Amino acid sequence: MQLFETRQAIREAVTAARREGKTIGVVPTMGALHAGHLSLVEACTKACDFTVVTIFVNPTQFGPGEDFDKYPRRLEADLEALAPYGVDAVFAPTNEEMYGPRHSTYVVVEGVTEPWEGACRPGHFRGVTTIVTKLFQIVQPDVAFFGQKDYQQALVVRRMVADLDMPIEIRVCPIVREPDGLALSSRNVYLSADERRQARSLSQSLELAARLVAEGLRDPATIRECMLEQLSQHPDVRVEYVALVDPETMQEVASIDAPVVAAVAAFVGETRLIDNRLLTPAEPSSAGA
Amino acid sequence: MQLFETRQAIREAVTAARREGKTIGVVPTMGALHAGHLSLVEACTKACDFTVVTIFVNPTQFGPGEDFDKYPRRLEADLEALAPYGVDAVFAPTNEEMYGPRHSTYVVVEGVTEPWEGACRPGHFRGVTTIVTKLFQIVQPDVAFFGQKDYQQALVVRRMVADLDMPIEIRVCPIVREPDGLALSSRNVYLSADERRQARSLSQSLELAARLVAEGLRDPATIRECMLEQLSQHPDVRVEYVALVDPETMQEVASIDAPVVAAVAAFVGETRLIDNRLLTPAEPSSAGA
Repeated sequence: MQLFETRQAIREAVTAARREGKTIGVVPTMGALHAGHLSLVEACTKACDFTVVTIFVNPTQFGPGEDFDKYPRRLEADLEALAPYGVDAVFAPTNEEMYGPRHSTYVVVEGVTEPWEGACRPGHFRGVTTIVTKLFQIVQPDVAFFGQKDYQQALVVRRMVADLDMPIEIRVCPIVREPDGLALSSRNVYLSADERRQARSLSQSLELAARLVAEGLRDPATIRECMLEQLSQHPDVRVEYVALVDPETMQEVASIDAPVVAAVAAFVGETRLIDNRLLTPAEPSSAGA
Repeated sequence: MQLFETRQAIREAVTAARREGKTIGVVPTMGALHAGHLSLVEACTKACDFTVVTIFVNPTQFGPGEDFDKYPRRLEADLEALAPYGVDAVFAPTNEEMYGPRHSTYVVVEGVTEPWEGACRPGHFRGVTTIVTKLFQIVQPDVAFFGQKDYQQALVVRRMVADLDMPIEIRVCPIVREPDGLALSSRNVYLSADERRQARSLSQSLELAARLVAEGLRDPATIRECMLEQLSQHPDVRVEYVALVDPETMQEVASIDAPVVAAVAAFVGETRLIDNRLLTPAEPSSAGA
């Protein structure tokens, strides 16, 4: 596993691999790697001949007042975590390498970026699509891997790749959870022990929603109310949104007749967490039809 | 020379060429080809092993009230014009092929897009950078050729390619002119005989500016006044802008101590024309130093 810090060096390594006929896979990350990231890495090494993991805390996807400065950076530990996986290349550039002083180009996806994370974090998705485009242009992968935990992000990236005709397959891998259900996130390290306990409420509210839908509830407003009530029992949990949305458009659904995504964002203390789950309605019983 | 109408078909042709070790060049056009385009095609076939000419009247770079509907479309004549040049592939897709019903992604360059053409034609450069990105992703060229007649456009594309790390070399080729100086443009066909005579004033005003700078004038305001007076002598010429700008930033210069670009945009009757010229100041004489 080789570490590259410049665009030119990683490009040369990938070009050499491609010349040997190898397929190229990329896992874009901001580092502070956990088992969620590693599941993407594993999927990538299985599917592709040459795996590139990028580690870059991208300033343009953090808003003012967000946690760019304190976001965990621990390259040594990340390299150790990647060591067993058969990764070929790690690309960990500096800010200066990625954004020159005259940088002024952005990739903007309209529509699907506007609600939820886009509304709570203005400019966030513009930063994501811009850095992902740059990484795609540098690495020129055949396949790129994203986690379902950032459901809206994965949808935005898929929209961008389709709209800009990027010859790249996007694969979205399932959320990896702690035993108690908490979705893995690099931001979980911010949580105090008490906040950590309360943070379970996000996944618990999604489980509750899944159960209600499986039991035949069809009204999104009712399900949302149940989720909110569940979350409200935790004093340090401040909900940003709870939504039941169409999996392709991120628009709220009027009734649950097909699979929907339940998405939740909440501050737990000072830490902003997100989670989501696909809810699949029960087949209507033939007796009721 | 093969004609392709789908992204998949041109991609396969280019991929096959690349596998043979050929370098790929692209000349993006909106068709209605003239000798200016053909000079780009010639430069491309000389520099690259496999030349792709794209012909697509891109709707997203036309504003409301602009000439998208009447823009000349004549694919048959274009293919004939290209026949002698050793072009390998022409990519001429439909609007539907290039923009799906859910298209919502745009590439936006800030800064250098804002004055002049950007100010006169809101959204124009966003359309240009978006379609050029799409064509680059489809063709994946090593080199792309643009004309200096659209000076600001070439600068915007260079900025975009640098900022997004596209592994593509941008070459800008000189303006091709009619014997009387008029810059070739697909829009020249709109001009009546009388307008055609008055249209000479754009290049004449640039020649005047070049002469004044060569003779030692250093004050942009004075030179601009001379150009405007020259243009004002033509009753059907309505100036949109005359500017003396830094060749890299498109910002107006305060004095002419280094090469500057003189740029002019004007309606001649109903037809909007642009032209530009690099002005190089005379070396200060040693006697004056």
